[in-house]
Amino acid sequence: MGMSGGRGTAERLVVIGGDAAGMSAASQARRMRGPGELEIVAFERGHFTSYSACGIPYWVGGDVAGRDQLIARTPEEHRARGIDLRLRTEVTEIDVERQRVRARDVDSGAESWTSYDKLVIATGARPIRPDMPGADAPGVHGVQTLDDGQDLLDSLARTRGGSEPARAVVVGAGYIGVEMAEALINRGYEVTVVNRGSEPMSTLDPDMGRLVHKAMEDLGITMVDDAAVTKALTGQDGRVRAVATQDAEYPADVVVLGIGVRPETTLAKAAGLPLGHHHGLLTDLAMRVRGHENIWAGGDCVEVLDLVSGQERHIALGTHANKHGQIIGTNVGGGYATFPGVVGTAVSKVCDLEIARTGLREKDARRVGLRFETVVIESTSRAGYYPGASPMTVKMLAEHRTGRLLGVQIVGREGAAKRVDIAAVALTAGMTVEQMTALDLGYAPPFSPVWDPVLVAARKAAAKVRAGTVQGPSDGAGGTA
Amino acid sequence: MGMSGGRGTAERLVVIGGDAAGMSAASQARRMRGPGELEIVAFERGHFTSYSACGIPYWVGGDVAGRDQLIARTPEEHRARGIDLRLRTEVTEIDVERQRVRARDVDSGAESWTSYDKLVIATGARPIRPDMPGADAPGVHGVQTLDDGQDLLDSLARTRGGSEPARAVVVGAGYIGVEMAEALINRGYEVTVVNRGSEPMSTLDPDMGRLVHKAMEDLGITMVDDAAVTKALTGQDGRVRAVATQDAEYPADVVVLGIGVRPETTLAKAAGLPLGHHHGLLTDLAMRVRGHENIWAGGDCVEVLDLVSGQERHIALGTHANKHGQIIGTNVGGGYATFPGVVGTAVSKVCDLEIARTGLREKDARRVGLRFETVVIESTSRAGYYPGASPMTVKMLAEHRTGRLLGVQIVGREGAAKRVDIAAVALTAGMTVEQMTALDLGYAPPFSPVWDPVLVAARKAAAKVRAGTVQGPSDGAGGTA
Repeated sequence: MGMSGGRGTAERLVVIGGDAAGMSAASQARRMRGPGELEIVAFERGHFTSYSACGIPYWVGGDVAGRDQLIARTPEEHRARGIDLRLRTEVTEIDVERQRVRARDVDSGAESWTSYDKLVIATGARPIRPDMPGADAPGVHGVQTLDDGQDLLDSLARTRGGSEPARAVVVGAGYIGVEMAEALINRGYEVTVVNRGSEPMSTLDPDMGRLVHKAMEDLGITMVDDAAVTKALTGQDGRVRAVATQDAEYPADVVVLGIGVRPETTLAKAAGLPLGHHHGLLTDLAMRVRGHENIWAGGDCVEVLDLVSGQERHIALGTHANKHGQIIGTNVGGGYATFPGVVGTAVSKVCDLEIARTGLREKDARRVGLRFETVVIESTSRAGYYPGASPMTVKMLAEHRTGRLLGVQIVGREGAAKRVDIAAVALTAGMTVEQMTALDLGYAPPFSPVWDPVLVAARKAAAKVRAGTVQGPSDGAGGTA
Repeated sequence: MGMSGGRGTAERLVVIGGDAAGMSAASQARRMRGPGELEIVAFERGHFTSYSACGIPYWVGGDVAGRDQLIARTPEEHRARGIDLRLRTEVTEIDVERQRVRARDVDSGAESWTSYDKLVIATGARPIRPDMPGADAPGVHGVQTLDDGQDLLDSLARTRGGSEPARAVVVGAGYIGVEMAEALINRGYEVTVVNRGSEPMSTLDPDMGRLVHKAMEDLGITMVDDAAVTKALTGQDGRVRAVATQDAEYPADVVVLGIGVRPETTLAKAAGLPLGHHHGLLTDLAMRVRGHENIWAGGDCVEVLDLVSGQERHIALGTHANKHGQIIGTNVGGGYATFPGVVGTAVSKVCDLEIARTGLREKDARRVGLRFETVVIESTSRAGYYPGASPMTVKMLAEHRTGRLLGVQIVGREGAAKRVDIAAVALTAGMTVEQMTALDLGYAPPFSPVWDPVLVAARKAAAKVRAGTVQGPSDGAGGTA
């Protein structure tokens, strides 16, 4: 065990990345093995540890009062548990053969090598920044890190106070984009969302994305679809003043980039570690980097198995990162835990509009060779006669012939989003839509119609599967009932 | 096929009971077979069809404006679909051998026989009325039917208008009892709930019922546990004036009986049809009465298989009745559908307190010979830093050694009740709590902590199962972590 000099008999675990996956792994490893058995060194290039990046839009929007509320565990708390946490220290190289990492102090620039017995890579994801003029101008903001969030809030503070409402342009209409649109609406901005796709929320099928489009317009948000941003225009002060597409210009006092993220695997790639088609690290079920007995990886820098399609995907989501960290820490600590994969569940909201999805969209199903039936139903969140019952649209995909559930998308108001969990569990269990029709879901008038919307969809899907079995596939081309 | 004279080649379906199960069955049978193929005669002794009995507390409480809102389909609508619906007509005998039923016009008393080729029994449940003096006094009300609801509202109208708030006593603290307590609070009553059990909501374990007790007291409801009502005392006008227990008297301007229901199977019993231990009809998976090829039964008058315990239970719940009706109608119409059973999911609320359960309680598990581990965890409905995050208590039971999920109980505020659906699907799928720890549930700060409360419970339960496997059962006696 090529331990470096100066240490006793304890193994050394090195963790690269101090957010959800990395620090969960470190904490769980520490729970299982004390400092006498396992030395833990964690490198983080930023100022913060263990924070909720998913909470940044709500901090920017004012729902969350302060940055510190997003921090689950401070550096001091980690250190108090015997984790040697080195902030503002960026790992610049992984030397797999000699089991060591090179790290640089961000402020001083000083570099040094640290050897490891076990390594956890939790380098996260980096936001996609459009390759266009002006992308780095003051007033153009990403929202990936707490530092980004603070910069954006500072920028917002500059742009308010005039007699007219300030204008914000959000580039991208995925989860981050729609959540940032809400945040900026809450801050009193006139908001325009410029989106390359035909509808917002490309994680939904376009027919469901259309519902989001309409609802966002009803909130007063200007929705520009099918439009790629070509440049950010700056004013005389050098700050952004507008965003341009091929066809138009959209004035902007502030621009938020919500285009999405990709795995941050520069280090891993340079070290020769295995990456997948989405540029994420590939791991085995125990979250070990494939082919490397003493290296684990988790969180936004890895690809995960999609249990429905049978293929790897990249999904940057705090809940997965926390699970990965837990599993890695258990395995590093000598226990046993595995991550079987995901079904692709995601929930979001724009003001009171709730958006949820799990499993495959039509195009995902086609891509992996599945034939399917689709249904779209309208129902309500509560019994129709109960106050506050709000409309809900549920789309369901089921495999042709077998009737196996493939995916569910829900757009509605209160009570819409978390209903997707029903489908998430059913997908995990490999249920058919016919089996789902008999699910014993909670019913009382304040909580559901007597047939829960998910059951209504399952019934209709089951009928379509039966009809399709007799008549042949009706949705080879994915038509909608 | 012993058809009665005067009909053509159409078969005749007779349905006894015009509420959820009966009319769903009739409607679905009609969808599958037109009037030329199937004549449908439905008998209902009351004035209404296809109404939501579950909605009555909300109508009484004022959340639902009028009775008609609770009616999903009127007699006229049923008749327009070719169903010969006979209201105020009570079936008084089933003659299985000669395939006919005797029915009596409630108003005229006239009786006649109607023959059937196929019979659906959907006679529902009847409220348990305590066998005590004064139980039938004016001012003492059940809340089983729309007529009951109207009577209660009339009674409430009489008792209001004084300078002091009127007083209501609710007897029983199950679902109906707690929902009626809410209704009467909403109407401005001083409410006392008198309950035979040690805690309210005996469908929960007592430790979880205790949380309901406390929350109801916080709402200003007087909770009297461990108290059996011995009589209803009446005033000089003959109306109820108080409820007495062994130890005390509770003044009451109105008394609501919410003690529960039992299957209404008097007719079925007299006809020699098979009943179970809970006095409900026993059916096969196609909802056919066991041993009777042309008789089906569903809704509150049947027993259902509990998929977790493997034993029959009686559960009166509209969502099951609707499913039964759908399945019966499909089978009567020549199709194929089955009802696999239930896992015992139920949700309810008292003002903003949400209560949910699915699967087995500790005593259920013991009764069927299961050893188990239990955990109770505290979490929140949303990310802790997100506005409106409210506390939630989740109790989880897992089988000793195998770790199979056995049951979940949840008490909390907004977002608590329908979370039980996650566990309902997992129970149906036979998942272990270890498998549940990897469930891909919807996460975003407005909807869930990064570990959903159900996952937090599953993690703790999985750890306890592992520990129990090493050390032997810790919960042979059902202790709680």
